[in-house]
Amino acid sequence: MTQAPHHIDIPLRFGDIDALGHVNNVAYFQFLEEARVRSFGEWTGDPDRASGLFFVVASQKLEYRAAISYRVKPIRVEMWAVRVGSSSLELGYIVRDHPDTGEKVYAVASTTMVHVDPATQRPAPLADELTATLEGHQGGPVPFRDGGAAA
Amino acid sequence: MTQAPHHIDIPLRFGDIDALGHVNNVAYFQFLEEARVRSFGEWTGDPDRASGLFFVVASQKLEYRAAISYRVKPIRVEMWAVRVGSSSLELGYIVRDHPDTGEKVYAVASTTMVHVDPATQRPAPLADELTATLEGHQGGPVPFRDGGAAA
Amino acid sequence: MTQAPHHIDIPLRFGDIDALGHVNNVAYFQFLEEARVRSFGEWTGDPDRASGLFFVVASQKLEYRAAISYRVKPIRVEMWAVRVGSSSLELGYIVRDHPDTGEKVYAVASTTMVHVDPATQRPAPLADELTATLEGHQGGPVPFRDGGAAA
Amino acid sequence: MTQAPHHIDIPLRFGDIDALGHVNNVAYFQFLEEARVRSFGEWTGDPDRASGLFFVVASQKLEYRAAISYRVKPIRVEMWAVRVGSSSLELGYIVRDHPDTGEKVYAVASTTMVHVDPATQRPAPLADELTATLEGHQGGPVPFRDGGAAA
Repeated sequence: MTQAPHHIDIPLRFGDIDALGHVNNVAYFQFLEEARVRSFGEWTGDPDRASGLFFVVASQKLEYRAAISYRVKPIRVEMWAVRVGSSSLELGYIVRDHPDTGEKVYAVASTTMVHVDPATQRPAPLADELTATLEGHQGGPVPFRDGGAAA
Repeated sequence: MTQAPHHIDIPLRFGDIDALGHVNNVAYFQFLEEARVRSFGEWTGDPDRASGLFFVVASQKLEYRAAISYRVKPIRVEMWAVRVGSSSLELGYIVRDHPDTGEKVYAVASTTMVHVDPATQRPAPLADELTATLEGHQGGPVPFRDGGAAA
Repeated sequence: MTQAPHHIDIPLRFGDIDALGHVNNVAYFQFLEEARVRSFGEWTGDPDRASGLFFVVASQKLEYRAAISYRVKPIRVEMWAVRVGSSSLELGYIVRDHPDTGEKVYAVASTTMVHVDPATQRPAPLADELTATLEGHQGGPVPFRDGGAAA
Repeated sequence: MTQAPHHIDIPLRFGDIDALGHVNNVAYFQFLEEARVRSFGEWTGDPDRASGLFFVVASQKLEYRAAISYRVKPIRVEMWAVRVGSSSLELGYIVRDHPDTGEKVYAVASTTMVHVDPATQRPAPLADELTATLEGHQGGPVPFRDGGAAA
């Protein structure tokens, strides 16, 4: 069942801003990473373990919608599972204003991750419990403008 | 006419490596950015002007093929124009070993950029001379595994 | 008059962690920068203007006291004015746990900044109002272990 | 015996530049880190092992002398041992132009490092061979403007 998206609020850092005066295009991917690490911690009930660590990033796609200026209010990253496979996972994201600040959407994105056995570095099946947890956070496709599939 | 890909060699930094011991997924996008800035400088004959500055990144897509460990030899980013539009541009990249070091491909990627008028921040047509320069570096589609279109 | 130190809470990012599994030595200086930008915004009543922008960093010194592991709870940076000069400013910092999390001190540091006229890039006197604001946040010397002067 | 300083050339990245249009104050410390990792690799004949990994940074001090604009030519970091102790080490640095580019000095800095046993995280004596290697790269004090001791 589709649920309201889970979200993580991330304060900007002055260091995210580049020579053009806005959040640098690279920093958006650090926001996605932070959303993954924190969300997995919350979803698995193990916040500081950084459970994303046994996943390898296989591909990413991001559409930039609006420039982000430095401000004190955090940005919000909504994150959900687009697809839960046997040993892989596709995540969707919307990077937007915290609702107290505004309604703007800054980016939409997707990440495909592969669950690996840390010993062998080979794909490994997701545990049933983790699959169930992820399915509890499943949502629709990422609203990419090009209508294309997620990364 | 398709030419042999232009390339930029980028030394890794210890700071590119994350807690898992390999180049962090975010750093790949900084490599692409560096390749863009340097290549545009070379292509336009204005190396330190960072000519990419009047382009806005509209979307990016990256497939990770292999983990990169810290080493002294630079990585090589091949970059070419996949499509040159009236006010936009699609770039393709292959992140690989410097040929003196090996044959490994670490990532393939694409970036769509929009040329903007810095005063109005609105899309602005590419000058004919720049279009001609970019077409001189045009190549084929990015060899994404999913067969999908570039970002 | 010495006041209780002003502080800024900064959430860690997974990207702050390096190959050794702790917050990288370089990231501490980004925490100091963020504390400066946010504190100046709060002190001058202009939070999003990033008022630190007309100061140039002249020197910095930092003593590392303990390694920081990734965790969800933010770290706290206490910051105060060690010395307010006619066109320069010395800031002191203690990087520590948020009191809800613990009592550990991770670093002590100082930054000397020079106020510059953005047009000429030459040192420029601090406005009386800013001097008064900074003096309202003045505190004692940084407790460096080596007993030496701040940077 | 004092030798001519060893040096490492580091290409800038566009991402080193901040909202003010120059290399960000934090990035200088990443240049020092890169110089350490590469120099230790060269000095110990083990370039890719990143031998600095068993040292913990205890303190750092840096004086900024001139702003660095983005340019293609690398910056040069000269690095030498200021003091070689039984289990600690003080390094000195000068960040400057590559001689092909200019004569400007951008920063002088020092780092004190403690050699630790990775198993216990306790200070551990430097091996005689490493001490001899470091003493072969020993030089004078860092030319700080304040005349003070290094960090």
